[in-house]
Amino acid sequence: MVKNNFFFNLAKSADISAFATRINDEFASGEVGYYHLPSIAAEILEQTKKYEKNLYNIKNIVLVGIGGSSLGVKAIHTMLDVKEPKRELFFLDNVDPHTFLSVTSKINFSETLFIISSKSGTTIETISLFKCLLELYKPSDMSKNFMVITDPNTSLEAYAKSKNLPVFNIPENVGGRFSVLSAIGIVPLMLCGYDVRAILDGAKACQTRYIEQGDDSLVAKAYHYAIHRNADINVIFSYSDRFFEFNDWYVQLWAESLGKKKGYKRIGRTPIGLIGSRDQHSFLQLIMDGMKDKTITFIKIAQNEAIKIPNISLSGLESCDFVAGLELAKLLNMQCDSTIKALVQEGLSVDVIELDRLDEWHIGYLIYYYELLTSATGIMLGINTYDQPGVEIGKRILKTMLLK
Amino acid sequence: MVKNNFFFNLAKSADISAFATRINDEFASGEVGYYHLPSIAAEILEQTKKYEKNLYNIKNIVLVGIGGSSLGVKAIHTMLDVKEPKRELFFLDNVDPHTFLSVTSKINFSETLFIISSKSGTTIETISLFKCLLELYKPSDMSKNFMVITDPNTSLEAYAKSKNLPVFNIPENVGGRFSVLSAIGIVPLMLCGYDVRAILDGAKACQTRYIEQGDDSLVAKAYHYAIHRNADINVIFSYSDRFFEFNDWYVQLWAESLGKKKGYKRIGRTPIGLIGSRDQHSFLQLIMDGMKDKTITFIKIAQNEAIKIPNISLSGLESCDFVAGLELAKLLNMQCDSTIKALVQEGLSVDVIELDRLDEWHIGYLIYYYELLTSATGIMLGINTYDQPGVEIGKRILKTMLLK
Repeated sequence: MVKNNFFFNLAKSADISAFATRINDEFASGEVGYYHLPSIAAEILEQTKKYEKNLYNIKNIVLVGIGGSSLGVKAIHTMLDVKEPKRELFFLDNVDPHTFLSVTSKINFSETLFIISSKSGTTIETISLFKCLLELYKPSDMSKNFMVITDPNTSLEAYAKSKNLPVFNIPENVGGRFSVLSAIGIVPLMLCGYDVRAILDGAKACQTRYIEQGDDSLVAKAYHYAIHRNADINVIFSYSDRFFEFNDWYVQLWAESLGKKKGYKRIGRTPIGLIGSRDQHSFLQLIMDGMKDKTITFIKIAQNEAIKIPNISLSGLESCDFVAGLELAKLLNMQCDSTIKALVQEGLSVDVIELDRLDEWHIGYLIYYYELLTSATGIMLGINTYDQPGVEIGKRILKTMLLK
Repeated sequence: MVKNNFFFNLAKSADISAFATRINDEFASGEVGYYHLPSIAAEILEQTKKYEKNLYNIKNIVLVGIGGSSLGVKAIHTMLDVKEPKRELFFLDNVDPHTFLSVTSKINFSETLFIISSKSGTTIETISLFKCLLELYKPSDMSKNFMVITDPNTSLEAYAKSKNLPVFNIPENVGGRFSVLSAIGIVPLMLCGYDVRAILDGAKACQTRYIEQGDDSLVAKAYHYAIHRNADINVIFSYSDRFFEFNDWYVQLWAESLGKKKGYKRIGRTPIGLIGSRDQHSFLQLIMDGMKDKTITFIKIAQNEAIKIPNISLSGLESCDFVAGLELAKLLNMQCDSTIKALVQEGLSVDVIELDRLDEWHIGYLIYYYELLTSATGIMLGINTYDQPGVEIGKRILKTMLLK
């Protein structure tokens, strides 16, 4: 179960019904592909299961991909953080030579599958890293250790087919940052042994609640973010170390979707990800006493591993005994609650998402919740949520620099 | 060498000389302790060297500390990221039971030194984790596997002495988030084999440049941040994965120092840390097309590991060949340069810090640079840079919740 409680007044259904309708229309139109990923995944699951039979000697997966091709996978992998995964998962998601050396020093080529993941098929970082790997390992038969995930009919797909590499496709109308529930996420996560079916079921449950059953609290929350012009920084304060990469995934989703020019106007909502209670000793001071330009969503986990703070007293340190006997997880959540209370007292917009557990189902739900929230906020801001025109200019400049 | 180049107009020396004087006065007063850490560290270095002689069987260090007691150490450790450190370094910097189990499952108690690090001596998270460790390991002689870093005369120091634990002190007038060049950082980093002397020398070189030699570009940059009211989000865009934890350290330093109430007014500058080129596929879109509420400082490394993108062409993917033959590090830096150019064209405030290498000396320089910049910006905003009154309320609420 996932609860979402609000400490600010949500708009009434009547006031937001036009927006709710537009989201339902966007959903029903079929033009925005991510909405429907939980319903069309069965084929990829089957395909992956079949493909895995060839991988009996593969102990490591290296996902070569950047931005939307890796952030979501990293997020889910880190949230689950099982002790002994079926296969180790590594990432090459930057053209940093230090990372390249560090990752390649940890693996044995013959036991490793490299997933070359690029929606467009020509991401310069990904293809460059791919070439570095080919140069390093000089494989005689690439098809054993390389596979490709890309849009249908890209140059990368054509290249892969010419070398007999397995290819998995992403639907063309699924944007990179919305693609974790497509082959982009399904393939590497399944190969690591995670219960991907449960992730998709969680996402589907979220869809059912907010789209089919018409719970409009998510639309009302988006409305609050869209009209609350003085608070255009949206903070996620997640109470567990395992949310670290999830925060990063959220930052991409929110920033790249909602930062857009609209005619002469610049529109944007700035995402920030924090980890509690750690960042109560960092960023919290700014939220409490700095400008009231932030909304804050707390994320907490109801059930967590059982480690009890022992009921012992250290001489002289009795002032710390008021938490004796508490579970660490309980202390973590009470710190979350007390921070919520302090921020609400300051009149800030606060809500809290509580997950029963941090397992596949709840993660799928959470991912889909944030995708929906992004779409809803984009509709209200009147922008194109799904493109990213601003990053093309830098790419062109890079090309010009190198070709001159 | 460290270069700092600006793509916006810096204020003239005459216009900021009053502020430059105030920073020099604050430095000379001796009241703010961190300024002088590079000059007084010799004693701690000696003390640590002596202490280390007892640690011949210690293979792991676990730093138990939160906020200022761990972020700086994590930052430096991650930036150096040597392949085979003298001792492995782990962190317990959150009351997350999952992390507690994960870290303790990786170590052998008899080969591990736990550093209990708390400036106040009564940080509830740190003391609670300390108790959990005592309960887990039930040591007969604590002094072999535990040591303490804290302010002089705290309850934690008294407790440690009563148990014969070694104690290292932080000067009382050094704030937690400014403490990484004190025993807080020196002790764990030296025990892991890093050249701490070089870190301190780098910091000293930065001090010499901006304080003694009177280079006022740093003051002019702070002035720009203080008066540029529409751009109160300050982004660091660091081009290497190894800056990941450094960004986090910066976020604490900037947010907790510069988010303050001043009478009825709320003042703040919001820090954001990004990693290039990775986050060109994430947050960059928002900087390019969203509101012009951000300044951006790029950090890049001139010399990095040599991995060349091979001069090969993949059939159909020839559009990616324009980077063939480049070093990965060169591509990374050219991506940085092209992003700079794109942002400057949009009229955003951009500057770039270039480090020759990411080694101890340059890291010490960079750390001190950001500490100075924070102090200078705080002086211009007219706030107390060194306190954190806003986080006390949450702590009081937590106590009330538990005691009722």
